Amino acid sequence: MTATLESITASLANISITPAASVIHAETNSPATWHEALQSAASVPPSFEPIKTLVYKPKTAKTAVPVPVVVIARDDTETSSSALAKKLGLKELRLASEDLLDEFFKLDKNSLSLLALDKESFPKVVTVVDSSIASTPDTIFAIHALSSSSTIFLSGKDVLAYLRSLETDELKIQEVDFTTLKTEQSTVAPVSSANAARSGTKEKEDPKIEGAVQIAIGVKKEVDFSAWYQSVLLKADMLEYYSVSGCYILRPWSFSIWEEIQEWFNKRIKAMGVQNVYFPMFVSSKVLEREKDHIEGFSPEVAWVTRAGSSELEEPIAIRPTSETVMYPYYAKWIKSHRDLPLKLNQWNNVVRWEFKHPQPFLRTREYLWQEGHTAHLSKADADKEVLDILELYRRVYEELLAVPMIKGIKSEKEKFAGALYTTTVEGFIPASGRGIQAGTSHCLGQNFSRPEMFNIVVEDPNDPSGQGKLYAWQNSWGLSTRTIGVMVMVHGDNQGLVLPPRVAYVQVVVVPCGITAKTGDAERSKINDACDELAKSLVDIGVRAKADLREGYTPGYKFNDWEQKGVPLRLEIGPNDLVKQQTVSVRRDTGAKAPIPLSELKTVVPVLLETIHKDMYTKALNEYNSRLKEVTRWEDFVPTLDNKCVAVIPWCEEEACEDDIKERSARSAEPQDERAPSAGAKSLAIPFDQDRFTPLEPGKAKCVGCGKDAKRWTMFGRSY
Amino acid sequence: MTATLESITASLANISITPAASVIHAETNSPATWHEALQSAASVPPSFEPIKTLVYKPKTAKTAVPVPVVVIARDDTETSSSALAKKLGLKELRLASEDLLDEFFKLDKNSLSLLALDKESFPKVVTVVDSSIASTPDTIFAIHALSSSSTIFLSGKDVLAYLRSLETDELKIQEVDFTTLKTEQSTVAPVSSANAARSGTKEKEDPKIEGAVQIAIGVKKEVDFSAWYQSVLLKADMLEYYSVSGCYILRPWSFSIWEEIQEWFNKRIKAMGVQNVYFPMFVSSKVLEREKDHIEGFSPEVAWVTRAGSSELEEPIAIRPTSETVMYPYYAKWIKSHRDLPLKLNQWNNVVRWEFKHPQPFLRTREYLWQEGHTAHLSKADADKEVLDILELYRRVYEELLAVPMIKGIKSEKEKFAGALYTTTVEGFIPASGRGIQAGTSHCLGQNFSRPEMFNIVVEDPNDPSGQGKLYAWQNSWGLSTRTIGVMVMVHGDNQGLVLPPRVAYVQVVVVPCGITAKTGDAERSKINDACDELAKSLVDIGVRAKADLREGYTPGYKFNDWEQKGVPLRLEIGPNDLVKQQTVSVRRDTGAKAPIPLSELKTVVPVLLETIHKDMYTKALNEYNSRLKEVTRWEDFVPTLDNKCVAVIPWCEEEACEDDIKERSARSAEPQDERAPSAGAKSLAIPFDQDRFTPLEPGKAKCVGCGKDAKRWTMFGRSY
Repeated sequence: MTATLESITASLANISITPAASVIHAETNSPATWHEALQSAASVPPSFEPIKTLVYKPKTAKTAVPVPVVVIARDDTETSSSALAKKLGLKELRLASEDLLDEFFKLDKNSLSLLALDKESFPKVVTVVDSSIASTPDTIFAIHALSSSSTIFLSGKDVLAYLRSLETDELKIQEVDFTTLKTEQSTVAPVSSANAARSGTKEKEDPKIEGAVQIAIGVKKEVDFSAWYQSVLLKADMLEYYSVSGCYILRPWSFSIWEEIQEWFNKRIKAMGVQNVYFPMFVSSKVLEREKDHIEGFSPEVAWVTRAGSSELEEPIAIRPTSETVMYPYYAKWIKSHRDLPLKLNQWNNVVRWEFKHPQPFLRTREYLWQEGHTAHLSKADADKEVLDILELYRRVYEELLAVPMIKGIKSEKEKFAGALYTTTVEGFIPASGRGIQAGTSHCLGQNFSRPEMFNIVVEDPNDPSGQGKLYAWQNSWGLSTRTIGVMVMVHGDNQGLVLPPRVAYVQVVVVPCGITAKTGDAERSKINDACDELAKSLVDIGVRAKADLREGYTPGYKFNDWEQKGVPLRLEIGPNDLVKQQTVSVRRDTGAKAPIPLSELKTVVPVLLETIHKDMYTKALNEYNSRLKEVTRWEDFVPTLDNKCVAVIPWCEEEACEDDIKERSARSAEPQDERAPSAGAKSLAIPFDQDRFTPLEPGKAKCVGCGKDAKRWTMFGRSY
Repeated sequence: MTATLESITASLANISITPAASVIHAETNSPATWHEALQSAASVPPSFEPIKTLVYKPKTAKTAVPVPVVVIARDDTETSSSALAKKLGLKELRLASEDLLDEFFKLDKNSLSLLALDKESFPKVVTVVDSSIASTPDTIFAIHALSSSSTIFLSGKDVLAYLRSLETDELKIQEVDFTTLKTEQSTVAPVSSANAARSGTKEKEDPKIEGAVQIAIGVKKEVDFSAWYQSVLLKADMLEYYSVSGCYILRPWSFSIWEEIQEWFNKRIKAMGVQNVYFPMFVSSKVLEREKDHIEGFSPEVAWVTRAGSSELEEPIAIRPTSETVMYPYYAKWIKSHRDLPLKLNQWNNVVRWEFKHPQPFLRTREYLWQEGHTAHLSKADADKEVLDILELYRRVYEELLAVPMIKGIKSEKEKFAGALYTTTVEGFIPASGRGIQAGTSHCLGQNFSRPEMFNIVVEDPNDPSGQGKLYAWQNSWGLSTRTIGVMVMVHGDNQGLVLPPRVAYVQVVVVPCGITAKTGDAERSKINDACDELAKSLVDIGVRAKADLREGYTPGYKFNDWEQKGVPLRLEIGPNDLVKQQTVSVRRDTGAKAPIPLSELKTVVPVLLETIHKDMYTKALNEYNSRLKEVTRWEDFVPTLDNKCVAVIPWCEEEACEDDIKERSARSAEPQDERAPSAGAKSLAIPFDQDRFTPLEPGKAKCVGCGKDAKRWTMFGRSY
């Protein structure tokens, strides 16, 4: 089926329906990308909600022609497939395959909407409509216009009118109140014992099927990594898409992680004598453009303020992409004597790099949060030492807080920071995409910015016997950004959603009451709830971030799923039997492992268990990283290694021309060549400091895999972010 | 003497001197304003230093014609007047009066520079030149071009050439190496005993004279408050002027205060259930302009990004002046059920209000740091309560951290936040200017933003029996900014510089070794230094932020002055006699009071003393504030009260027209009418919650001082920031 907005609008007009609006936008492949496309579209209604269209296939004999069930619901409505199956008297409802969608509607899942129901398809399916659509006739809903790149907006009233127009005397739509349905189900099929609840089969199945069957929501990490990532961030309430493209809202669930990192890092840099400051975010073009190599790296991405109120500014003013040129004129002023060195300043701030392609939450955004440290030293030795001290802190942020393994190394000349003498990096790896990721960098700027023709940061040389000698300051800069959070999500998350490392989790332990059914008396109910509350409080007392989830009207299964999506490291369950046994059942988010814990041992066991989870998450990720580092000594193996989602570690000559050449030769020509997108060609990721982990290179004998010249060191090459 | 840049340039050309540049700028009346004027001037050299020209009058018989000493020095050079007097064989050098400047140079202090020396004046004075000017012939210096509104730039070489051109066979300039001079003096006039050092007369005199005699540096708080304020901020290393006008650099000495406030406030709002988030700083014009009343309050000051790299943006994007309209579309999305309320979010961020007039560090700047809390509630009662809870935290930040008294109250309709239902405020007072200052505001927005035609933040009403009722969220917003720091400086600072309240001081106690002279042996010297170091460490051990100042090459007097300028609350001195007595002498920054403390009691006495200092600073400021609150019941007394630098507290009708009228009638017509400048007309500052502190108003009898109608409540009116 092919359809244009015009043809759809025309057929709606035939039944007297006028859309509130309709827009064409970028291709979308998930609720997240759809949402974003709509946010950046020009003429969408001021307020609207998406409608989801879910297609289920009931279990039928293989030879029978299936009658799919099409569910049309508000995006927020919980549409329990098992409860629905029961109501419709069907055996089991499973997500329809793409083949079935194609067979019945000639559409892929990204283009599907209720508009796929027409005179032809309607009689072949069962159509179920969320009754809350009818009950809000004035709400405007967004609906795919039979294409993943167009959307039409209809009121609740018009949605109903459209579907009613398809009805025949034999076949009507079925309105279902899913809220009541949920309650009915929990009444009809109460969980009979705490053990059953704990085994999780009954209740857990529900949300899991739920997750899987919703079209374009239950995206699998291994199938569509990018859609999975966006979905995890949204479902875990970490992030919200924002009306300015490339900018995102950091919600408490992610911002709290940043606060943990800030606190940890602040404490340690202050112990090193670093002081926090705040420099303005505006910078004049004159100052910004002082260091040529440096600004060349940034100028295509600089955002310019040219107007204030209704007045044009005399000179446009830039928003800092980084603060070297903002700060260093003042370093020149403040540093007058060798006694003023070292000067060690840091700021936590926002910076703007207006990238035009492929924004990705946390990893590549137009505005982002980071810390930038800028220090000046008397000697290169002092500067060198600090570069490594900071790099070690970055490694520890990843490994000790986020449980994400890193490899420390130095960047190639081509990949170093614009204007730096050299750049060191902690280099991470995303197994799902097989790409390396630069996770934090600590630069020695040498004297590039302090030179007289630059910022002239100079003191008398205290070691010059003549007293006339000048010494230009040795400078470093180093930065760590909210990219940390994105890397953490990508490395640990799974098909149930986020998996949080315990040390940074806003909620480390959630306590869920179980075995409460419609038959449970009030006394029993509050006994269980109180026990949960008490348990959470006793953990809070010993410094564990615990929380009891006592929400009414939600099944344990719903809660399990909710907290699993949000990645809470440890769940504790308490049901009637547990009360009897004076125990709680623990369920680890990372492994799913269950174990009873006697309440008397809670305060000792839980902290240890959280540490074990941290260690296990780290070890798992480390083993994964190690298994994807492949020593490659022949060019023939290079691209296949990348295609295998691995990092190729090669003996390398360290020459820039060779790196250019490797990149070009390893690019798959089918992919677009965008410098800033995850690049298809491989670049050097890092020259690891620890060369001993690799097979020793024989000097003179070891040849560069790229060009055949003498190789210097093992170097990691890979596709990257 | 009147001179134009042209005429000066012409006479320089006669002696083959070509200025590096020359600029005309705004009038300046202090080094700070000069600095700022140069920063915002278009064509200044990339790097330069100001030169200071100091004029001293030696003590001479009243009848004798004085021979002033003119000192021309780099801005950074310490020019000790007593050492200089000794060197020149003069009795005493005192700052020359304005009369004397006029008599000899026909110039005021703000226009004076070395160019005031000409064939006519040179023979009448002694000219001393800082030898470090000659030793850096290529450095470019800024020099007032005989006017406070123009500046000429000359190299060190040309400065010398100019002065040499004035020399005659009889009269030469004298080059003085002030660094050597300082050392010589401390050798020539050693402090003979610890007691002498402690009495401070000898050594302290020096820096104090120093402070006073430098033209346009030793500005008195009571004489030129604005120049004093800028000078204190610069001298205390709190602030640096920046190359983009209206933006300032917060150096560690001030930023650490902000960090203290952040930590204190974060802890308390988190206990209230507030979570931190980060929303983007960019906002589309469509969203920004959604709430009309609100945006009208901000639109003249909004900064717009229109370009990125070399591309024009399709639509200009604003930088947030505040985040109501940035956030609330997402509140509408996230708040779907009454169970989602309350929603309490806060962010610490930068905002931009591009004001065109009178920027003032901390008080009114184009970019500033603040926290903005945004909450949504189910009921007005809940919202009302939170408004006051937050206001109480603001009061405590000022009173408990900064020792600055506040009066809590409500703003008039005219003065409330744009778009708010009502605004509560903590209102401070700056005695030196007699102006009120809005120090922090907590707004109830009512349902103004949640209404359906605005952001439509709506839930089902859980208390409506029909189940159909809708409830629009009750919202609050509240903010506290780095203005806190400016208020603190203005209230506590004195003519020695900053006075820091102990709880926020980055250094609470400084330990200074005394009685070390050129004759002191190495053993004795290190004994004293070690004692200081140990003393500081023992204080650090008990959580006091203490620091020993063991810098070599500086006299105790220099150090005293340095730390006094920086406002350190408590100084501890240790000299040889103190070591014998096992004591230290404490000197309070706020009162100058001295008292010995036995070393054995140090750990108990110092924390108590710091608390006493806090209390005394607060009480002093409170008494001052109270003494300036004047009940005024007749219009005739209104303006005189303001002119007396007081707040007029009047029985008021609370009508907007009356407030407009009061403002107009109380304005001194000579002053410019700038709404955003410290206004000359009085406006209502607050209607204090605590009405009982004032004489009871008899209902029906008490009449409004402004219009004679029935008065409602006592209301504070005043000039303000």
